[in-house]
Amino acid sequence: MISSLPSFHKGIDVASDVRLKEQLPALTEEIVATYTPDDVINHLGHCPLPSYEAVVEIVLSLKDILYPGYRRKVGLHSGNIRYHVGSTVDSLHDQLTVQIGRALRHEDRIKGNHDDCETETDYEAKGQAMALQLLHRIPELRRVLATDAQAAYDGDPACQTTDEVVFCYPGFAAITVYRIAHTLVELSVPFIPRMMTEWAHQMTGIDIHPGATVGDYFFIDHGTGVVIGETCEIGEHVKLYQGVTLGALSFKTDDDGQLIRGTKRHPTIEDGVVVYANATILGGNTVIGKDSVIGSSVWITKSVSPRTTVVLEKPQLRVRGASETSGADQGNFQI
Amino acid sequence: MISSLPSFHKGIDVASDVRLKEQLPALTEEIVATYTPDDVINHLGHCPLPSYEAVVEIVLSLKDILYPGYRRKVGLHSGNIRYHVGSTVDSLHDQLTVQIGRALRHEDRIKGNHDDCETETDYEAKGQAMALQLLHRIPELRRVLATDAQAAYDGDPACQTTDEVVFCYPGFAAITVYRIAHTLVELSVPFIPRMMTEWAHQMTGIDIHPGATVGDYFFIDHGTGVVIGETCEIGEHVKLYQGVTLGALSFKTDDDGQLIRGTKRHPTIEDGVVVYANATILGGNTVIGKDSVIGSSVWITKSVSPRTTVVLEKPQLRVRGASETSGADQGNFQI
Amino acid sequence: MISSLPSFHKGIDVASDVRLKEQLPALTEEIVATYTPDDVINHLGHCPLPSYEAVVEIVLSLKDILYPGYRRKVGLHSGNIRYHVGSTVDSLHDQLTVQIGRALRHEDRIKGNHDDCETETDYEAKGQAMALQLLHRIPELRRVLATDAQAAYDGDPACQTTDEVVFCYPGFAAITVYRIAHTLVELSVPFIPRMMTEWAHQMTGIDIHPGATVGDYFFIDHGTGVVIGETCEIGEHVKLYQGVTLGALSFKTDDDGQLIRGTKRHPTIEDGVVVYANATILGGNTVIGKDSVIGSSVWITKSVSPRTTVVLEKPQLRVRGASETSGADQGNFQI
Repeated sequence: MISSLPSFHKGIDVASDVRLKEQLPALTEEIVATYTPDDVINHLGHCPLPSYEAVVEIVLSLKDILYPGYRRKVGLHSGNIRYHVGSTVDSLHDQLTVQIGRALRHEDRIKGNHDDCETETDYEAKGQAMALQLLHRIPELRRVLATDAQAAYDGDPACQTTDEVVFCYPGFAAITVYRIAHTLVELSVPFIPRMMTEWAHQMTGIDIHPGATVGDYFFIDHGTGVVIGETCEIGEHVKLYQGVTLGALSFKTDDDGQLIRGTKRHPTIEDGVVVYANATILGGNTVIGKDSVIGSSVWITKSVSPRTTVVLEKPQLRVRGASETSGADQGNFQI
Repeated sequence: MISSLPSFHKGIDVASDVRLKEQLPALTEEIVATYTPDDVINHLGHCPLPSYEAVVEIVLSLKDILYPGYRRKVGLHSGNIRYHVGSTVDSLHDQLTVQIGRALRHEDRIKGNHDDCETETDYEAKGQAMALQLLHRIPELRRVLATDAQAAYDGDPACQTTDEVVFCYPGFAAITVYRIAHTLVELSVPFIPRMMTEWAHQMTGIDIHPGATVGDYFFIDHGTGVVIGETCEIGEHVKLYQGVTLGALSFKTDDDGQLIRGTKRHPTIEDGVVVYANATILGGNTVIGKDSVIGSSVWITKSVSPRTTVVLEKPQLRVRGASETSGADQGNFQI
Repeated sequence: MISSLPSFHKGIDVASDVRLKEQLPALTEEIVATYTPDDVINHLGHCPLPSYEAVVEIVLSLKDILYPGYRRKVGLHSGNIRYHVGSTVDSLHDQLTVQIGRALRHEDRIKGNHDDCETETDYEAKGQAMALQLLHRIPELRRVLATDAQAAYDGDPACQTTDEVVFCYPGFAAITVYRIAHTLVELSVPFIPRMMTEWAHQMTGIDIHPGATVGDYFFIDHGTGVVIGETCEIGEHVKLYQGVTLGALSFKTDDDGQLIRGTKRHPTIEDGVVVYANATILGGNTVIGKDSVIGSSVWITKSVSPRTTVVLEKPQLRVRGASETSGADQGNFQI
């Protein structure tokens, strides 16, 4: 008999106690009552923020024309590439115009220039101008990103072609998004650059703040756990490995105990530097000189002269052979 | 002539050798023969586990009403928010009822209370009761999560508004999922909490066990690589950076060599503590006292008094200038 | 009046300045002009690379038959499993044949054996043979992966059943993809293995090169930040925690300054070894002997005898009590 089937077979058609469901309207009121004007985690009645999905689609479309033929469109050749690029540029123009317009309006609101949607400023006209400026930067972005692909090939013995780099290297994926986002920072587009790099962070485990500046031929290998702070300055031909932090020393606060925002808090890494896995370099006055090498797991808060090698001194380890080990005391280890 | 096209142009219509395809039925039998009753990696003939996709959808719907107006639904205002919340609550009720019912049935089976689907227990009725309890906790969840958003704004000089935090900070995303999952742990819902936090782990690189307890105003910056163990106790106004491990010392085993499960294995972090990048704090008896600061890359297995600062002593480094470096011996570095 | 609505309400129908849009064709030409033959980041006019989406679908389908009943297909039992496996095997055969064919053709092109699509070699016939070989390995893959699931259960006190491991442990997910990819490496399939493990890396933060060799009963707990290099050799019953690097010392270059590729650069980890969080083990001649334990955050570039325990010596820390701390100098910490 059908009705004797366990109720989960019916999927979403839940055999629930109807009296209990009668609580839901009151519960809804209770939740809605928590959406107060001074509540910092609602965005009701305000103009829409940029759409996360639209911003991700913009990045993917930009990658389609930065690296034609690799991922979403195949079978491209000299006979059809013009049409592909033309239609992608056209749709990028429209999407960027809308999303940058939203970001500008949001920025204006939080700066207190207006309370809400009804303003006279034509944010989309401004958005369009910025969108076009970004699109004009694509040839230069391609030039720089080709140097990054070359640096990955040159720096990784497990790599066989730059095709692999473009196709599936997470470091290159993160650098691509960073370079797009940084271009938007240079064009004074708010909010969207950080959305882009946080999406890349989610995909790759590599967190590059869009405000950092980075020279040509940049390579990050493996990359999970890399953090590059907002005010870092990185030269050309720099190579980083997984887990490297280029971070700040403790933050300065003003007389009211508020953080001081906008000063140089993160290090400068000169041309040709290599930083091995899990090294930590901290501080806005810290400069790692040209062609220096920072070894794995090193922790540095002071400047290093050019062409210097810094490695961990022989590690301070406690080594215990089998004969000395008792079953009961396995020492201090970590889950 | 069409037939001269390379066969990959035909996509999935493979020009394969038909005689070779005749191996497939025998191969299928061979694979099916490995699905034996004592096989630990099949789930045949058992009641369905909670659906991964359904659980992710539940989390996304909960975020829609925890943070109205940010992501999936835009254009919400005081005139329409009630309808939006009402319909989301209604569908959450149904989805949670089904999925919690599945988790309870699975739990019962592995505890040996029944072998399979045909049982008298009404798991969905239990699931419905727990679903309603979770929904009643939403106002309290909103209160706590607003403190977490505030803590992120207060603690990050690169942050301009709490909107950014809600919209794209991975630490806040991981804490949101953790707080939902921990509420389910408190309601004794099995299996689903871990599914939720492992999804957050995948998205953010932050692994917070749903069993840990965490006070208000919790902030994790950058976050990739953070691990917070099952029995951690974390106070209010605590701040962690990327790569921090709050872990266990080596595990105790019983007389049969089996791990002892369920004891306090992970540290206690009191109110106001800050733990900088890649620090490791281990052990169930380790207590980091109120307002202490644990520096970057520090490794601790003992308790620290309140208001104490612990940093790495000047690092034991070997520094070699350019003149001393020979081309052949570049020292010990890491890919 | 409709026309007074702010233009963002119209979504993608942008109220942009039409004269500005007239720049787009010239901009398109400018972009297309950068796609030159010596450009390393375009793939125009070449045969298609393997499809990323198709390769991901192949991995998901393989998981459907490696772990029947867990994720995408539910309600499977002894009465219907044969049909499910049979149809999945059939579609896997076709998909693998096409994608391996593409990878072989690409490999041949970059090795200079042909310039482009028009070649006589029947890459799909070769692809089909390799596809069948992979499918014949499924029973052996299931045997090994069952040992990995068991190792996870045996090694994690927070784990209640192997179901949890299969369903949501990221370490197990990464090992599953690695074992599939490594089987393809053994069958000499190019390009696709790395695509697979980079997808797993993105999902889990765990980067296992498909060329590494790994014995039975392998467990990686938490896992974010783990890097296992191409020439690692790992024995049976090995357990790794988050942030562990099994890496290379600095790379050798040849007389032209090019990296030498293909030598053993990464360590050997013998049976029964445990490596705790964030430990770094480097070098192709480094052997960690049987049943040794490497403690959290340890950094090793030399071999370790069997049954040896290596932990950090009492950390070189600077501890400052509350009385000694001035408000102005908070010491050196990290964002």
